Amino acid sequence: MLFRAEITVKLKDGMLDPEATTITKALKHLGFECRSLKQASVFELEFEADSRQNATEVAQGMCQRLLANPIIHDYSVVLE
Amino acid sequence: MLFRAEITVKLKDGMLDPEATTITKALKHLGFECRSLKQASVFELEFEADSRQNATEVAQGMCQRLLANPIIHDYSVVLE
Repeated sequence: MLFRAEITVKLKDGMLDPEATTITKALKHLGFECRSLKQASVFELEFEADSRQNATEVAQGMCQRLLANPIIHDYSVVLE
Repeated sequence: MLFRAEITVKLKDGMLDPEATTITKALKHLGFECRSLKQASVFELEFEADSRQNATEVAQGMCQRLLANPIIHDYSVVLE
């Protein structure tokens, strides 16, 4: 069966995020004042799996082995 | 009032996405076969605005001036 997953990868709370800091500063220079800014990457994937359970495991495997660094990232998998 | 917005920026359909191609290949090397893979950036922002209408305009202004490149990106703004 073909499954569609949305995987969100973001920095764990408390991790320094220099990219977000830079974007916040750049927005300020353009006149947009932000109280806070967090960034995340979202991957929309389609892949074959035997069952919904198996599809979740496959997607989590992708996160653990490539898409996320478990030391600094939190990730979530949503199957459609 | 403080508003919270989730801004999603992704490449327009049909644009070449070498990063997604590379990730797909890397996943294949690890034994994960993907039918398709798309990537998007999500920004979670908190900022002050006078009204909901104003908050939407501010968020769209951020996209047009910094967060997205309107030539190659589609973006969407969701206010919470």
